[in-house]
Amino acid sequence: MKIKVGYQGNHGTFSEIAAMRFFAGKDYEACGYPNFKVILTDVENGVLDYAVLPVENTTTGVIARCYDLFRHYDVHAVGEIDIPIHEDLIVLPGTKLEEIQEVYSHPEALSQCTEFFAAHPGIKSVPFQDTARSVEYVRECGDRTKAALGSWRAREYYGLESLISKVQDSDLNMTRFLIVTAKEELDPKADKISMMLVLKHRPGALYNILGILAKKGINIMKLESRPIPGRIFEYMFYIDFSGNIRNREIKEVLKELELRCEETKLLGCYPAADPEKFSENQS
Amino acid sequence: MKIKVGYQGNHGTFSEIAAMRFFAGKDYEACGYPNFKVILTDVENGVLDYAVLPVENTTTGVIARCYDLFRHYDVHAVGEIDIPIHEDLIVLPGTKLEEIQEVYSHPEALSQCTEFFAAHPGIKSVPFQDTARSVEYVRECGDRTKAALGSWRAREYYGLESLISKVQDSDLNMTRFLIVTAKEELDPKADKISMMLVLKHRPGALYNILGILAKKGINIMKLESRPIPGRIFEYMFYIDFSGNIRNREIKEVLKELELRCEETKLLGCYPAADPEKFSENQS
Repeated sequence: MKIKVGYQGNHGTFSEIAAMRFFAGKDYEACGYPNFKVILTDVENGVLDYAVLPVENTTTGVIARCYDLFRHYDVHAVGEIDIPIHEDLIVLPGTKLEEIQEVYSHPEALSQCTEFFAAHPGIKSVPFQDTARSVEYVRECGDRTKAALGSWRAREYYGLESLISKVQDSDLNMTRFLIVTAKEELDPKADKISMMLVLKHRPGALYNILGILAKKGINIMKLESRPIPGRIFEYMFYIDFSGNIRNREIKEVLKELELRCEETKLLGCYPAADPEKFSENQS
Repeated sequence: MKIKVGYQGNHGTFSEIAAMRFFAGKDYEACGYPNFKVILTDVENGVLDYAVLPVENTTTGVIARCYDLFRHYDVHAVGEIDIPIHEDLIVLPGTKLEEIQEVYSHPEALSQCTEFFAAHPGIKSVPFQDTARSVEYVRECGDRTKAALGSWRAREYYGLESLISKVQDSDLNMTRFLIVTAKEELDPKADKISMMLVLKHRPGALYNILGILAKKGINIMKLESRPIPGRIFEYMFYIDFSGNIRNREIKEVLKELELRCEETKLLGCYPAADPEKFSENQS
């Protein structure tokens, strides 16, 4: 039976690309969903085997809404993958740059391509629902004066052409996705742990908690504080650190964190993505 | 001479509201700007006295792009203010709910009002450039079948009516703004410090740094790690903690942080916003 993988959005979104890359070589089926809540509910009740959730972007930072939802469901992360976000200028086959009068895309994508629009003052940027839908819209219109900013996957799925690749101003835009499941599963190569911790908001609280990790020589990869609605004297932290939950020392660390924090939740244990490993050949 | 204050966007954005609230009672002029880079350049070269920059939102998290830019300019924060983000359903005067067929707004605002659209399946949501522009557009069209989601300030500026206030699903949406300047200035009531720290990515590095604060009983309000492009073995942290840079103990802390970090930058010292103080009467 095919592995069922959920992602947010339509064909051609970077979430679909993340699912395709992570499950490449496996017998899977990727299903687009309208929002994160529905995806997580379907993972929890077993309709989906896995979901691919964007959690952090190098330009815009942590995708807090997704993180904050995730911890309320009975699911955990078993993998992560980094995907470069490259917007291509996508056109009907054979279209020339001189023909284009309007470029459609999500406002966020349009705002990342300011240099392109400054260099082509005759081309109007038109905000649209999402990048993938804007590519579909260009195909529907069949009008060579219209183009879209979107992913290589949207271009491929809708059978269009990329006139310019990597149109965005910065080349360093990357999104980190977590692969989550409700199954009991632990990759033997897992070397990274994600947790949510709630601390009392008092001097030294975070220092004392980090001491538990420092004493064992554990490396912290990410730490982010988040306010807790309605609880102004407590703080929530998302933390990533190195280790495997089967390891005896890590088990001691987890036990101590549980004792010393107001609340803890293990979000997952998985093999860390290797940023060097990623191949650009498909993008 | 009027105080010149820059903000991103058009009349009616929440950035303009932040400027209005922070400088209320002073003789100021608020100027809309197309993007953060131009604002910060104009603060640096003295065209603007101050700028109001969104740095964190309770739903979407830290606005990393703004933070990351800010530290590259010779400016510092001298104040902060929290603004609740409430989208109103804005219409031409006298319009009734039954007349509305289309609601225009920024995709982010539309996605925060899912319950409204679920309850009114006959109303179509139409993505638009930004919330304030969508209000202006409704006025331009003069068509009672069109409405927009935007702020009370956009409604007021364009002389329209609010048919439903606080349309969004969650009531807890708040954005934190920093007030930055290039002037030498320190509020005597300043009790909060924002810094950027670069650490070597090795076990215990963050723990040791936080020890400097913990030893003096200093309270950490926010801590966020950010990757540094092209420097995979170093980490950058944005940290907020209590104190005033004129204080002798804080001076010692700053000196020690400078010695023990790869790089530090003082982003500002200012009076912490009091979330309880905020009055809702204008929203």
